Amino acid sequence: MTEPAGMKPQRRACYYGDYLMLDRVLSAQAPESARMGRMAHDEMLFIITHQAYELWFKQVLHEMDRIQSDFSETPLDDRSLSRAAKGLERIRDILKFVIGQLDILETMTPLDFLEFRDILFPASGFQSTQFRLIEIRLGLKRETRIALDEKPYESRLQGADRDAVMLAESQASLFNQLEAWLSRTPFLTQGDFRFRDAYRKAVVAMLEADLAYLEGPGAAADSREADARALEKALTRFQAIFEPDSAPGAWRMTPQAVEGALFITLYRDEPALQTPFRVLSALMDIDEAMTLWRYRHALMVQRMIGVKLGTGGSSGHDYLAATAKAHRIFGDLFQLSTYLIPRSALPTLPQETARRMGLVYASEGARP
Amino acid sequence: MTEPAGMKPQRRACYYGDYLMLDRVLSAQAPESARMGRMAHDEMLFIITHQAYELWFKQVLHEMDRIQSDFSETPLDDRSLSRAAKGLERIRDILKFVIGQLDILETMTPLDFLEFRDILFPASGFQSTQFRLIEIRLGLKRETRIALDEKPYESRLQGADRDAVMLAESQASLFNQLEAWLSRTPFLTQGDFRFRDAYRKAVVAMLEADLAYLEGPGAAADSREADARALEKALTRFQAIFEPDSAPGAWRMTPQAVEGALFITLYRDEPALQTPFRVLSALMDIDEAMTLWRYRHALMVQRMIGVKLGTGGSSGHDYLAATAKAHRIFGDLFQLSTYLIPRSALPTLPQETARRMGLVYASEGARP
Amino acid sequence: MTEPAGMKPQRRACYYGDYLMLDRVLSAQAPESARMGRMAHDEMLFIITHQAYELWFKQVLHEMDRIQSDFSETPLDDRSLSRAAKGLERIRDILKFVIGQLDILETMTPLDFLEFRDILFPASGFQSTQFRLIEIRLGLKRETRIALDEKPYESRLQGADRDAVMLAESQASLFNQLEAWLSRTPFLTQGDFRFRDAYRKAVVAMLEADLAYLEGPGAAADSREADARALEKALTRFQAIFEPDSAPGAWRMTPQAVEGALFITLYRDEPALQTPFRVLSALMDIDEAMTLWRYRHALMVQRMIGVKLGTGGSSGHDYLAATAKAHRIFGDLFQLSTYLIPRSALPTLPQETARRMGLVYASEGARP
Amino acid sequence: MTEPAGMKPQRRACYYGDYLMLDRVLSAQAPESARMGRMAHDEMLFIITHQAYELWFKQVLHEMDRIQSDFSETPLDDRSLSRAAKGLERIRDILKFVIGQLDILETMTPLDFLEFRDILFPASGFQSTQFRLIEIRLGLKRETRIALDEKPYESRLQGADRDAVMLAESQASLFNQLEAWLSRTPFLTQGDFRFRDAYRKAVVAMLEADLAYLEGPGAAADSREADARALEKALTRFQAIFEPDSAPGAWRMTPQAVEGALFITLYRDEPALQTPFRVLSALMDIDEAMTLWRYRHALMVQRMIGVKLGTGGSSGHDYLAATAKAHRIFGDLFQLSTYLIPRSALPTLPQETARRMGLVYASEGARP
Repeated sequence: MTEPAGMKPQRRACYYGDYLMLDRVLSAQAPESARMGRMAHDEMLFIITHQAYELWFKQVLHEMDRIQSDFSETPLDDRSLSRAAKGLERIRDILKFVIGQLDILETMTPLDFLEFRDILFPASGFQSTQFRLIEIRLGLKRETRIALDEKPYESRLQGADRDAVMLAESQASLFNQLEAWLSRTPFLTQGDFRFRDAYRKAVVAMLEADLAYLEGPGAAADSREADARALEKALTRFQAIFEPDSAPGAWRMTPQAVEGALFITLYRDEPALQTPFRVLSALMDIDEAMTLWRYRHALMVQRMIGVKLGTGGSSGHDYLAATAKAHRIFGDLFQLSTYLIPRSALPTLPQETARRMGLVYASEGARP
Repeated sequence: MTEPAGMKPQRRACYYGDYLMLDRVLSAQAPESARMGRMAHDEMLFIITHQAYELWFKQVLHEMDRIQSDFSETPLDDRSLSRAAKGLERIRDILKFVIGQLDILETMTPLDFLEFRDILFPASGFQSTQFRLIEIRLGLKRETRIALDEKPYESRLQGADRDAVMLAESQASLFNQLEAWLSRTPFLTQGDFRFRDAYRKAVVAMLEADLAYLEGPGAAADSREADARALEKALTRFQAIFEPDSAPGAWRMTPQAVEGALFITLYRDEPALQTPFRVLSALMDIDEAMTLWRYRHALMVQRMIGVKLGTGGSSGHDYLAATAKAHRIFGDLFQLSTYLIPRSALPTLPQETARRMGLVYASEGARP
Repeated sequence: MTEPAGMKPQRRACYYGDYLMLDRVLSAQAPESARMGRMAHDEMLFIITHQAYELWFKQVLHEMDRIQSDFSETPLDDRSLSRAAKGLERIRDILKFVIGQLDILETMTPLDFLEFRDILFPASGFQSTQFRLIEIRLGLKRETRIALDEKPYESRLQGADRDAVMLAESQASLFNQLEAWLSRTPFLTQGDFRFRDAYRKAVVAMLEADLAYLEGPGAAADSREADARALEKALTRFQAIFEPDSAPGAWRMTPQAVEGALFITLYRDEPALQTPFRVLSALMDIDEAMTLWRYRHALMVQRMIGVKLGTGGSSGHDYLAATAKAHRIFGDLFQLSTYLIPRSALPTLPQETARRMGLVYASEGARP
Repeated sequence: MTEPAGMKPQRRACYYGDYLMLDRVLSAQAPESARMGRMAHDEMLFIITHQAYELWFKQVLHEMDRIQSDFSETPLDDRSLSRAAKGLERIRDILKFVIGQLDILETMTPLDFLEFRDILFPASGFQSTQFRLIEIRLGLKRETRIALDEKPYESRLQGADRDAVMLAESQASLFNQLEAWLSRTPFLTQGDFRFRDAYRKAVVAMLEADLAYLEGPGAAADSREADARALEKALTRFQAIFEPDSAPGAWRMTPQAVEGALFITLYRDEPALQTPFRVLSALMDIDEAMTLWRYRHALMVQRMIGVKLGTGGSSGHDYLAATAKAHRIFGDLFQLSTYLIPRSALPTLPQETARRMGLVYASEGARP
């Protein structure tokens, strides 16, 4: 932020405070407790922590704008994909980082919180429109949401906020875009080669070997039955990739998209799949960070207000802890791990496929 | 670690590698995959991450040794208490820090883990004796543990390890020691003043006002009933501090201990209670860090092995996530927040009580 | 932020977005690159990171308000001191945390920064008034500052900002307040006992033993002379605590204050010194965090703009790295470590002193 | 670490403690203070923190093994490069993470350290052979090292340790390997197009515009001369990429390697350069993390032992702070930022070059 660089400015000199609009940002802390004549020192911390969250949420949405724009391209250019991967990695870094803000907020004790807690009623972090937008745009579905009060979540939002989330709900989410892009994964067939057939055979063999093992003398007798049931279920879910009707609802993504994701995961070292794999990894990181944030938040609420009830008969802690489990978006990607097989057992790809996944210059023999 | 300081050493010169016994520490990585002739690169990361955990666990236990020794004193000297508070804060710092080691471990992908995962069977982090000892010595009760396989947890440990945990179970835990110490909290009565009576009145009034509010026109009609039930329950649990028979099992600690903890929390700024409050805070931090670690661990397991089954018919993820909820030790301290009231409504303590909570020099007028 | 608690609100319902004034906070990002018609995607990240810093700086100043108000009391009540210790610990936590924001900012590459860097000229983080206020109020002296451009630092600030820093410079800093409070440390004399004399003897003996060692056969011949010189210097600096004229400028604090700090450090386990020691520790942590932040910042600047020149002929990197070294505020506290001696060699305090450092209830035999 | 997976184990059951060789790892803490009959509680923390560092250093070296092996391939396959990038990113993550271990160690106060500090003499972290190996293998040159005691650093190491570092010094470092690989960067010429000529023209124009600006009325008069000198110097250093004799020593890498690194940095979005750019970024991250670690370490030493002298007449703090500045390895990559120009001013590459940097399947029109 310091010096002239090549192009000389034909414009007003820039001043730090003006540029950052600090008059707005730093005048936006108006503790209610002060307004009511009983200033609670820690309300400032409470306000500032929440505002810092909202600032970072705005940044996340700014990255989402470009990522979703990139993902709306068909075909998706490799340069754009690289940019999207970096955007997702930045979102991941932000989400992981801001979890730590709760540690700062927790330097406020429950007794200090009590000094102004009642003034805030019924405001709630639940009303963070930007956080709802992040969820929606990533792909959290309306029907997946755990209800609070048995009312639709947007009933707590005011006019413009409600409009914003409803609009977002009507548009394609990143989940939808990802699904479409994964469904178009090339390389899955080549001449007579069908990746799905080759891989299916390998996985079924593996799972059946596991089943056989459970019937053998090495397995723990007391858990044999439960294990067997679980394996059967895993097998069914796997088959659903290829015969969707066999286990409806086993996956959120289409079978084609699951197949694409599987392929990328297995052959991630091929030049053409390196960046796609970064995309999938970053999405799992994001899902994990959101989940951890919810859970950490749940712990803080419990510490701050005990088991006291929120509106609606369920404590904030329980609600938040439940969303940590239920509001996963890219669960399919985690589920994939169930069906991975060791590299040594992977189907060998046709040479032509391997060639097509390479870089032009290397295929022409120019590799340095 | 550098220079002479006052006392001159009459002894052998110290060498870094010898002092740290690096010959042992750095020769303790023997990847099974290498032994079996198919070296998996990431097994080293797996081993080293776990060893780093075990090193830190040893440090935690080392701190526990002194803390528990200090807490076994009756009366507990203020100097010892200060030392114990610092020890607990160090444990908290360690536990919060090592959660981050999972981020390092997660740079290993599921596919890479698969290269050596089967070799490890049936070893499991579940068999970390030191972690079990930390849980036990903090105060996790045998009967609280979620069973894996419907077998007692120690059935998976070998001889000496099993002996160590059984011995620890037979000894006083920090929870027990804390409970005893809290029960001896002075200051609760002074002349006619009974803290319990004064405070009870204040809390009951508060909760009843909440109940009345629920019946008024301002409350959300649809949740009124659930809220009312919840408040009744909170009231019952609070009464149990004073009439233990009224709600058996509402608290893990004795009513006397709960009362002591409450007093410390409310009047924590008094010189005599500053360090006791640090002890309670650090214990909550530790409980929270353990919980968060379990949950983070659960997420990692899910990512690494999907929904595949562990031995015993329940996935590692589900088991770990369940322990995050169930294996809390100092839950009573979190529950206390339910019964806090604003400072302005706190019963005024007798002057004599306030004096006794002060420092000698200040009470003699020498404050600087 | 969820539920009613005791006192029922007689007021307007609180809405999350209104309460946090999000209309202001979230409308304060106006990338200059967009205004000039060539939107640079990462300028948003640049703006938001800086705004997040400013929010946290506001919180730090908010804590400083209360801490400085508490420290302006004479005598300083033990309850207020405890509150000040917590405030300082919170500042420490915030400063350590926000260093991590630079990791987020560094997800922007130098090439991306270049897209809008020239537009910002001559704005600079150097113009953060709040950061200057933090430095000044902690106690950074005008004459200690490394000059940039050979102009006084405030020459780069505009009207109101300049007024704010000049006002702050005219008021007592926390350093001044701390110094005054330390100078009043009680317990240093008791009857015939003079801590200064007893301790002086012990330290001189230790340093002289070190000197003797250097002349003996065990010492490394080639460094003997340099070591000896250094020890002589340390001894002189130590003597300056007791004979200020012997080494003017050896300490920033008055000898009385240094003596007080030394006493607190040595006998920190005594009840009367536990909280004072937390204050000193937190101040060292804060000094360290500020230093680390400057250094980390210097590294980032180097990465972002290379060795290109800032206005003033010295690169931003070098300037920042130099301030990391020069702008220390509580260096005296670090220097104290030079003069610590092992607990076993500490002068025994008179019994009466020990009694006066205890708590009233314990001195009356009521310890639990 | 939990369950059977496809291949059934034909081998002994694995036990957690045996697998991790915990008998060795957890028996390697032998506090000297205990051996001398005056156990210092915090010596355990000191030992364990250092051992944790050594464990992680072993992991870093394990990653270096594969990375250096990959980088020794000519040509370097794109799959191997991807693997190396991941390895470097893991090293970065580890180095950034372990800085935090110093926060844990700093929960030990200087007074507590004093209880056993003298016993350790003359052992020193300086003797960490693994850390020396990391430095050497990354590319720290012998002649760049700041001398301590005016003796070669290995003079403090014992036999086998000394042999290990001397062997490492005789082998190719990652710096050497990187330099060779960068020198082979393809794409720099194509038909008549010479990247060096096109880019040189653009940079010189930019720097000359800066110089002209300094002579104009808009520039700060008082710094004009210094700025001009600095720009001249920057220009000379830049020319040295193309005419090495014009400014010997301006770069550590060969001009060819610098040119390659520049090209990768500028066109990093091209598929063929995405992974190379990750390699360069990770190396800068590693350099930065090492530097920060050294500086953080310097601060800790200052806090722990004040300005007391180490052997050799220079304090540990000053030595460490100096190495933070001097022991940089990939400084050339940071210096590159000086010569970046805005994307809009970048020379347009020949179409054929762009095609060759793409992926085969995309060039054949199969992009999804």
